[in-house]
Parts: sequence; structure tokens; C-alpha cells
Amino acid sequence: MGARAEDRVFRVHPLPQGVYEGVAVVIDVIRATTTAAAFLEAGVPALVLAADLGQAQALRRPGEVLAGERGGLRPEGFDLGNSPREAGLARGRTVVMATTNGTRAVHAARTARVLLLGSLNSARKTAEMAALWGEGVDLVCAGKEGAPGLDDLYTAGVIGQRLLAWGFRPQGEMAHLALFLAQNPPLAVLRSSAAGQALEGVGLGEDVEVCARVDVHETVPVRTGYRDGGVVFGRGRC
Amino acid sequence: MGARAEDRVFRVHPLPQGVYEGVAVVIDVIRATTTAAAFLEAGVPALVLAADLGQAQALRRPGEVLAGERGGLRPEGFDLGNSPREAGLARGRTVVMATTNGTRAVHAARTARVLLLGSLNSARKTAEMAALWGEGVDLVCAGKEGAPGLDDLYTAGVIGQRLLAWGFRPQGEMAHLALFLAQNPPLAVLRSSAAGQALEGVGLGEDVEVCARVDVHETVPVRTGYRDGGVVFGRGRC
Repeated sequence: MGARAEDRVFRVHPLPQGVYEGVAVVIDVIRATTTAAAFLEAGVPALVLAADLGQAQALRRPGEVLAGERGGLRPEGFDLGNSPREAGLARGRTVVMATTNGTRAVHAARTARVLLLGSLNSARKTAEMAALWGEGVDLVCAGKEGAPGLDDLYTAGVIGQRLLAWGFRPQGEMAHLALFLAQNPPLAVLRSSAAGQALEGVGLGEDVEVCARVDVHETVPVRTGYRDGGVVFGRGRC
Repeated sequence: MGARAEDRVFRVHPLPQGVYEGVAVVIDVIRATTTAAAFLEAGVPALVLAADLGQAQALRRPGEVLAGERGGLRPEGFDLGNSPREAGLARGRTVVMATTNGTRAVHAARTARVLLLGSLNSARKTAEMAALWGEGVDLVCAGKEGAPGLDDLYTAGVIGQRLLAWGFRPQGEMAHLALFLAQNPPLAVLRSSAAGQALEGVGLGEDVEVCARVDVHETVPVRTGYRDGGVVFGRGRC
């Protein structure tokens, strides 16, 4: 597709519904897509997103790091939980990571030509990379168990703000809603979300604080391929 | 029900789903619930909400005013459109008013013990009246053709802000989302909504400006009964 002016729009999807064609940015800010970016930022060469804990265990090859969570915590037999604060422990090794909501959204968005994972941590770079392709951008929120997530909609708004600077305009009511949400401070919003409150409930409030940091690094996970049913992401560079 | 402290919560429903028991506030800010309040504020003694244009015509009795809209405009054979700017023309006479989204939401909320219509125009008084009953408040957004409306969610947030002052706290993620939306200026939000853009598209942008005025009167429509399948509202007083 070319870069016609009318293509410079972004849309926001509260849940992963529809068929995406251009650039899709999947957002599960607490915590899957934040942690995915943190792994690559910390020097993990490749990240394999698995649909659930069982698939992750089956996908993992010798020498690879197995990351996942159940009720927010590291499951037995796993090397790491899904905390962005632990990402540095996997430096230099491929990570196989199990998520539920995030993977569902990634699966729904696999028809997109370019598939990125969005976070507040690298919001500016996410927008820059999405803008590079010069066509319609779909910001696809993962939500939580089939319900829209305030945290993901907010993050879509923050990335959307940065897309405005690249000449994009919001298309549809939900894109405007996300931009209006993005006028609020990140930590207050993320703490109010169901995902944030669930993490605080299991003593992981510090993870919410990490997920709420805006533009603190420039690593954006980009889909590079597939492996045995898992989706492989590498570090995107502009 | 008593006024136990844990009951002092408000919830926000992006669409009319679920069963409501305490105080329900139906919100279709562009334009049905704004216009309903405007009629009562202008001296209309009773307002009958009908499900559609045909039911409104059947319900109307001699001497009553028939109000409705098709594509935003007054249908043939109707006395008035659904514009809050025309409300004064019906002074002193009962109005039978056809709405679609608004009526659907009112029907969904009929199980509530107290049923109010919410608008920005009388947001403060709406919160005060809802608080009077001292129990859970459900802010029920009408949406537009089955999709959540930015304008209604925003209005729920503005009413929610005023409920905070009455000792209520937000329950659930959507209540927080509405409060965060409410940090934005009303006209910008309403103009960005699908309902607002549809009205501007038919030359009724002035109606959007009227709907966006916050706390400009103190009339809140309260359900007083039913008439031949229509729902009757009168002027609520504290």
C-alpha cells in the first residue's frame, strides 16, 4: 500500500476484534507487552510468545529461559515470572514467555503486515516505528478476560498522541476516547485499572509503577516470525 | 435497602446491560436525555418517552406535543424535533417524545427502584438526587446503535465527580475510566463523539454546544410511571 494522505490515520480497538492489514500495535501494558519490550531492551536476542503455560513449556529449547505467570506469580517449574523488573536476568538468552490476554490479541492481529508490541516504556519509539510504514495504524488493546482495560486504552492514547506528531489523525470515537484518557497521569490511571489492582493485590504494585513509566527506553518488539505455534519477536530498530 | 457505607458506590455501564436495582441514571447526552430535561425545565408538566416514532404517534393524545427525530431532523407530521433548543415551544403541554438509543436504555433500567435521566446541563442536581437515596448508583450509558458512546461515558464521569462529593466511590474499571475522561473540557469531547459528529453533519452543531453546557439548570427527569408502554417522567425535586 502507498502512503496516501487519507491513510495516515490510527484507530483504537478496545478489544482484539476485526481484521488488521497495515501496522498493528498490540497493547497489554500490565504486563505482557511491557515485559516483552523489557526483555529485548535487556539484551534478550529473541522472544517467543506462547499462548499458555503448557505451550510455553513445550516450546522451550535447552538453554532458553521460561517465563510465565499464574495469578500474577511465577508458576512452579518456570525460571521467571512475567515481571519487567526481572528482565535483566535473561540477558543473552532466548525467552519463551506465556501470556494469556496478550497472546490472544497477538493472534487476532497476525494478519497485519507489521506487528509491534506497544508499551508506555517505549511509547515514543512505538509511534515512530508505526509511522515509518506510512499507512493505517491499528492500536489493538488486549483487555482482560474479554473486557476492555483502562490501562490498555490509556496506553493507546499515549501512543496516539505521539502519532499525531507524525501527521496521523484519530479515526473513530475510541481513538478520541483514548486521546482524552491520555491527558491524565500514567500511574494514577494504571493503578485504577483492574489489571493494576489485581497486581497490587498480590504484592506486585512495584510492577505497576514500572509499567507506568513513559518513554524510558527505545526498544519495540517487532514480529520476526513464528516457531512451533509461538510468535517470535525481535528488537525493532528504525 | 439501608444506607450502609459499602453501598455508597457508583458504577458506570458503557452500554445498558445487566439488571439495576437501586438508583439508575440513564445517559444519552446527545440528545435524548438533555432534551428531556430541557422540556421539564421549560415548564412541560410530563414527558412520555416512546420507543420509536410509530409508538409516539400512537401514544399522543389530543393537545399533546409530538417530538421526535429521523437522522437528527424533525419527521413529517411531528410538532418538534428532539432539539433542546426548541424545548420552550412546548411549555405547559405534555410532550410525547420518540428516541431510539435512549428508550432502549430506559427499558433496560426499568427494574431500578429510582430511574433518572442524566445530562451535563443538570449534572450537579442529578448527582444530588441520586445521592438522596443513599445506595448504589448505576450510571447507564445509552451508546449509539449498540456501541459505547464517548459523549455518554464522559457525562457519566462528570456526574461521577459530583457523586464523589456526596461520599460515593467509583466501583469497577469503567467508573474510573469515566472519571479520567471527565478531566477534559466538555465541548471538545462531545464534538469528538460519533453522536456529536453526526449532528454537526446535518447542521445541528449548535445542539452539541447546548448539550455540552455543565450545571446550567437544576431539573432532573424522574420516572413517575408508565402510560400505554411509554415511560412517563416528571420534574424531580430534592
